[in-house]
Amino acid sequence: MASEPEHRYQLRDLEEALQKSPADLAAFLSDTHPADVAEWLEELEDDDARRVLGALPVELQAEVLSFTDDWRVGELLTLIEVPQLVEIVEELPADEVVDLLARTEDAKSEEVLRQVDLERAKGLRELLAYDEESAGGVMTTDFVTVPLDISVGDAIKEIRSEEGPASEEEVGVFVVDKAGRPVGFVSDRDLITTPIHTPIEEVMEKDLIVSKAGDDQEEAAHQLAKYNLSALPVVDETGVLIGVISAEDAHEVLQDEVEEDLYRLVGTSIEDPTRVSVLHRVRHRLPLLALTMCGGLVTASILYFALGSTGSSGSGRTADILRFLPIIIALAGNVGVQSSTILVRGFATGEISPDRGAAVVWAEVLTGLVIGGICGAATMIAAAYMEGGGLSGLQFGASVGVAIVVAVTWASFLGCTVPTLCQRWGIDPAIVAGPFLITLSDISGSAIFVTVAALMAVTTAH
Amino acid sequence: MASEPEHRYQLRDLEEALQKSPADLAAFLSDTHPADVAEWLEELEDDDARRVLGALPVELQAEVLSFTDDWRVGELLTLIEVPQLVEIVEELPADEVVDLLARTEDAKSEEVLRQVDLERAKGLRELLAYDEESAGGVMTTDFVTVPLDISVGDAIKEIRSEEGPASEEEVGVFVVDKAGRPVGFVSDRDLITTPIHTPIEEVMEKDLIVSKAGDDQEEAAHQLAKYNLSALPVVDETGVLIGVISAEDAHEVLQDEVEEDLYRLVGTSIEDPTRVSVLHRVRHRLPLLALTMCGGLVTASILYFALGSTGSSGSGRTADILRFLPIIIALAGNVGVQSSTILVRGFATGEISPDRGAAVVWAEVLTGLVIGGICGAATMIAAAYMEGGGLSGLQFGASVGVAIVVAVTWASFLGCTVPTLCQRWGIDPAIVAGPFLITLSDISGSAIFVTVAALMAVTTAH
Repeated sequence: MASEPEHRYQLRDLEEALQKSPADLAAFLSDTHPADVAEWLEELEDDDARRVLGALPVELQAEVLSFTDDWRVGELLTLIEVPQLVEIVEELPADEVVDLLARTEDAKSEEVLRQVDLERAKGLRELLAYDEESAGGVMTTDFVTVPLDISVGDAIKEIRSEEGPASEEEVGVFVVDKAGRPVGFVSDRDLITTPIHTPIEEVMEKDLIVSKAGDDQEEAAHQLAKYNLSALPVVDETGVLIGVISAEDAHEVLQDEVEEDLYRLVGTSIEDPTRVSVLHRVRHRLPLLALTMCGGLVTASILYFALGSTGSSGSGRTADILRFLPIIIALAGNVGVQSSTILVRGFATGEISPDRGAAVVWAEVLTGLVIGGICGAATMIAAAYMEGGGLSGLQFGASVGVAIVVAVTWASFLGCTVPTLCQRWGIDPAIVAGPFLITLSDISGSAIFVTVAALMAVTTAH
Repeated sequence: MASEPEHRYQLRDLEEALQKSPADLAAFLSDTHPADVAEWLEELEDDDARRVLGALPVELQAEVLSFTDDWRVGELLTLIEVPQLVEIVEELPADEVVDLLARTEDAKSEEVLRQVDLERAKGLRELLAYDEESAGGVMTTDFVTVPLDISVGDAIKEIRSEEGPASEEEVGVFVVDKAGRPVGFVSDRDLITTPIHTPIEEVMEKDLIVSKAGDDQEEAAHQLAKYNLSALPVVDETGVLIGVISAEDAHEVLQDEVEEDLYRLVGTSIEDPTRVSVLHRVRHRLPLLALTMCGGLVTASILYFALGSTGSSGSGRTADILRFLPIIIALAGNVGVQSSTILVRGFATGEISPDRGAAVVWAEVLTGLVIGGICGAATMIAAAYMEGGGLSGLQFGASVGVAIVVAVTWASFLGCTVPTLCQRWGIDPAIVAGPFLITLSDISGSAIFVTVAALMAVTTAH
């Protein structure tokens, strides 16, 4: 991305390094931020990805994986053998291990669990048992607690004596009573600035907000955000502290929640919409679009029966055609907004870099074509049947079907190009992605429909 | 909210406390989390809000304000006199002061700046000069730096010697060279766990990601999120460290960004959509809906000219009516999705609590009615004109206009009730908010249109 400092390496630098010796590749990678390596892994072929991972020491492999997007982690895990995975697992905090294992085939994950330290495996199995969408599913069990009756200096000693993978997200310690229930929280900053002989009870924050392991993860994340906490304690049924949700993880949950709402709102796949295959896109969008299509057929029927019975003049060819206009503009509008939403968010998150733009647009337009083809064919049959079948019914149905294919494909093309041009011209693409785009799609859908109908009437008249 | 622990007080407890003596009110408030007080301030009348603020000690006033939503902060600031505001300003970190002052009238803000410590006022004025949307606009200047040539123990002493409002968001210190350029970062946790005689250079993270003060705040926030940083240093043109963006603030920027995209996508107000007045809603949505309406009129014209020239049978009353169907379903669909989006997000963020549901629905339906009325009247005139004017043209236009009012109001009612029912039945409201709702709105819009047209034809035939 152009916005990054110039000394940062780019994907093409890695591609150059891949041409050189393993030692050169290792040297290049050691000079690069793991988050950048993670981003590149999302673009590389599996073979190259395997070489990159292989050239990294195991701590960095673990770190790179923790930066990699979930969809790619799942794929990369199939490239990593069990012994290597065991080493990686030993480097990561528990909640990230659980995320990794949840994305590994069951047999392999079981094999890994059998090879890690017994105590740790027990903890991991417990974490794995929580619903992924619950507070238990997002918490980590790697955290430090201190008893209530010690001093600040002793608490610092406790932190120093803790072993195991340290998490960068740890910013304080929870104080627990004798039964293990959380009674206070002290930030690292307070530990540093308070005289060491002060009893911990005097410096700790007492008014704790707690979450239960079975609570919804979004509810827990909203609590953390509302009370501006740096960590949210998670307790079991008896009130004993069993885990901690970091602010970082809670914010990720909230961010995902609103992204999901946004994609659900337009009826498209909620995960990695710029990366998934055309088939995946079609499969995700088709159910709601089929509903849109059925709704359009209901509308056409309502118009047929209602207008036939209002005593207005007989329904000629023009009226016949117009009854199917709602179905066309509804389908085109939907598909257009799906494409534009994906582009808008892709630009906003930086996921659509300049060199990926064309691929995303191509996949979206192809998706539009396939969806248009399926809905067009189905509507053609329905329209032909509703018009009484026969050659004229079929010809009529074909006009409607062809118009749908063209209008839907065109709408997804508009949905890609309008936000792209806005992005290039420095206009916020989100402003044009919704109502403006639907209006464009409505107008052009109508124009396409009447043009197709006219052309087909001319063609078949010969 | 039902989800909160039972020992937490509710708004009705505060309302009870407001009936009692000032001492009782103060006692009640001292027992309550500032985030809860902030939430209640959003519901209270100004007079009660003033009493609540007045009953709090100044540190808590500052804390409550830092938890309060921006829209309400602006209103509350008008209730606070300058001397009190000066005291509050002294309690808050610089970035929050700047947010407060940006929401105060210029004269009052100037008065406050004249009364705070000279050195601090200078820093605040510098911060106020940055574009609110830039990295400089979101950074704070209250942070600790340490020089490169000291030990961990000395760094800890530096932190202890710092005065001024401590931020809970501080989780480490930046190391700067002699020119003040950032060269490293050490987390508080590392300071705690490293032997005190270790040179700071050995423990600091060296590979810093930095942001420039003029960078877009969203770009800076994306950098922090990508590299999973706990704080992002902000530098001036010469590379000198002038501020820090906390992870907390960066995540807020990212969250706001995607929320804004979501609301922009449906063409509605991006700030506090469940709270603003009906007039505000109408004013925000009308421009894009006017575009939708114009698009619908273009569509109607295309259909008129194209179908008139395809050689199909003459356009009777049925065809005339159908040409205006796209405009009706486009307006109704848009308005319906606006309502449903606001409801869906309101439920997700918890902003629509059970006792506010009815008020939000009422405001949305009223908004639908006003928008329907305006767009209906405009379309009536256009349709009457397009149909050649006269009594029959007017009657036709009136059918279209009335149908728009009814269909748009009905769509916003659907947009409110469908997500509400889903929420009650435990279905994710986001799934029905988009295409499903548009389909419902399309079908019912068509039915409303033909019914209105039929009724008006009957009425005027008498």
